Amino acid sequence: MSKDKVQIFDTTLRDGEQVPGCKLDTKQKLVIAERLDELGVDVIEAGFPISSPGDFNSVSEIAKLVQNATVCGLTRAVKKDIEVAAEALKYAKKPRIHTGIGTSDSHIKYKFNSNREAIIERAVDAVKYAKTFVEDIEFYAEDAGRTDNDFLARICEEVIKAGATVLNIPDTTGYCLPEEYGAKIKYLRDNVTGIHKAILSCHCHNDLGLATANSIAGVINGARQIECTINGVGERAGNTSLEEVVMILRQHPYLNLDTNINSKLLYDTSLMVSQKMGMPVQPNKAIVGSNAFAHSSGIHQDGVIKNRETYEIMDPEDVGVTESSIVLTARSGRAALAYRSKKIGYELTKVQLDVIYEDFLKYADRKKEIMDEDIHEIIEASSINIEKVA
Amino acid sequence: MSKDKVQIFDTTLRDGEQVPGCKLDTKQKLVIAERLDELGVDVIEAGFPISSPGDFNSVSEIAKLVQNATVCGLTRAVKKDIEVAAEALKYAKKPRIHTGIGTSDSHIKYKFNSNREAIIERAVDAVKYAKTFVEDIEFYAEDAGRTDNDFLARICEEVIKAGATVLNIPDTTGYCLPEEYGAKIKYLRDNVTGIHKAILSCHCHNDLGLATANSIAGVINGARQIECTINGVGERAGNTSLEEVVMILRQHPYLNLDTNINSKLLYDTSLMVSQKMGMPVQPNKAIVGSNAFAHSSGIHQDGVIKNRETYEIMDPEDVGVTESSIVLTARSGRAALAYRSKKIGYELTKVQLDVIYEDFLKYADRKKEIMDEDIHEIIEASSINIEKVA
Repeated sequence: MSKDKVQIFDTTLRDGEQVPGCKLDTKQKLVIAERLDELGVDVIEAGFPISSPGDFNSVSEIAKLVQNATVCGLTRAVKKDIEVAAEALKYAKKPRIHTGIGTSDSHIKYKFNSNREAIIERAVDAVKYAKTFVEDIEFYAEDAGRTDNDFLARICEEVIKAGATVLNIPDTTGYCLPEEYGAKIKYLRDNVTGIHKAILSCHCHNDLGLATANSIAGVINGARQIECTINGVGERAGNTSLEEVVMILRQHPYLNLDTNINSKLLYDTSLMVSQKMGMPVQPNKAIVGSNAFAHSSGIHQDGVIKNRETYEIMDPEDVGVTESSIVLTARSGRAALAYRSKKIGYELTKVQLDVIYEDFLKYADRKKEIMDEDIHEIIEASSINIEKVA
Repeated sequence: MSKDKVQIFDTTLRDGEQVPGCKLDTKQKLVIAERLDELGVDVIEAGFPISSPGDFNSVSEIAKLVQNATVCGLTRAVKKDIEVAAEALKYAKKPRIHTGIGTSDSHIKYKFNSNREAIIERAVDAVKYAKTFVEDIEFYAEDAGRTDNDFLARICEEVIKAGATVLNIPDTTGYCLPEEYGAKIKYLRDNVTGIHKAILSCHCHNDLGLATANSIAGVINGARQIECTINGVGERAGNTSLEEVVMILRQHPYLNLDTNINSKLLYDTSLMVSQKMGMPVQPNKAIVGSNAFAHSSGIHQDGVIKNRETYEIMDPEDVGVTESSIVLTARSGRAALAYRSKKIGYELTKVQLDVIYEDFLKYADRKKEIMDEDIHEIIEASSINIEKVA
């Protein structure tokens, strides 16, 4: 059975870029955009053109450069924003305007000092106006995570009639639990007239560490686009991590969902974005962290040496990591020590291993990480005579 | 209605410690253990005593030091391991031995070259033997995430009969989806005779970015302990983040679940562990990352200035962060610029703001982050005359 495609909407250059500490200029953004296109993302959100002359220029240059992906620009539900975005996207092969407005009671009251009917009217007007420039219009219902489902369904229905092709349902504050977010998507699938004319899109934030799980709950319940960033960068605790959702779908074939991403480029892309943005990736980051495929405890090492699948669900090569590493520490066991000793030329007998292992533990308690040269030293210094075989 | 308590089992010093790059000595471990006790964790897993003399010593010293929490030591289902752990825990006020064995077919076949019946026997023997030393015995069914539910229920039943007080159901490889992990816990609640005599515990790994969501799915389905680490450190992509699960339960009161954690100590504890371990926390880490409460985009800043809850679901002070920050960049709007200008003494009229904002954007496109002294400079250099009022 052929799998349903989930579109990957990358917003590294828009939602990912708007964070303290991120310093990308247009030239760097072009390099990243080119790589995202090569990676196989379906949509690149290139920026928020009205926000500054620099951002306008970036979106415009990216629109000219990108060969395969749709290029998207963000706007508020404001005419001027939409005109400027259309101008920036003029040369895109596949342009998309992303417009929208806050729909939760909190946003309607405090941000817009408005009411539900007026908000629907602004939403519809914005979509219709954007449609005069391009065909592909994505509508975002900001703070949809805290928006009453009934009202959300009504506004979705109206913007579809106005010509929206994609409906972005953002959990803007990162508040939803996966069940709740999944149920929201299902509610829209079941209750919005004309929903088959548009793609539902998940846009989740990671304030409680649930962005990835919420996005997956969304596509299980019928969404067919995920908005995400490389390394999960983005406002506050960031957005959904592209690498995580892509690998979850690939590792769970029974979901019958897949993306167009060439996963072998994930690790390199993560490195590139981290370096250019100046945004570090922690060692324990899923998929792309420096320790993501490193085994240091004895129990785990022993298992991995006997059979990789004992502790690894992914082949590191599938995400572009050359080899899973066996790191020796005081928590390592005899199996790992024997394995590494053999790699550097010592075939230890069981008796020899017992002696060397004791020396190794004392050494490792002191030094923490044990390199090959330490093993040489431990063996040379030991009371027994071990000859190198290789 | 009073809330059900979820026990927090912190394994920063055991599963968190066994990672490449982590360098903790006994003295540092004692400082962390003391802080964890103050934070209000219910159980501190202090180490794996048989693994090395240094780790034995750490567990033993932590056992003497800790006043409130249960102190736990890890073992394999091996007599010698259990004896050594009991010895290390001798002075603990509330000692717990954590023993167990791999239960998935992959572990049984490749790691133990054994069969299901023999594995049950070893599990039961280990629990019984541990019970001769201490009352509180936690049993782990390693790789439970990939273990057939029927067999898992059988082994749980047998170890409860043998005296296990806690059943740890680890998703060792970080493979499960939240629905699947939740269903596994529910299956055990529904099918294990005598399950009311033991606490079910979630131990999830973050290989696919789902550790937090899986743990929450676990407690929603009846588990009452979560095994986690500060900052989510741990083998490979790490363990469940303590700070995330604690704040999820606190932010979703309708779940009727809570922990004993003093959340105001979370941020400081995160910093302390990161510094002592030498394990950096990425800026976009949920709850404790340096950007977790920082707003830099104009749309968001405007909302936060009008009403904090527009974009923040948590009060930063609840996790020990003194203030959510408004950072000015080229993505910032007029509202944020006016707000910050006012803070440093300039009351801008609407017309003045329009002029200054244009200058600000050009400056910010170049400089990225705008500090107070930059605002002074922009205003001084502008073509209009603005006087400081404060």
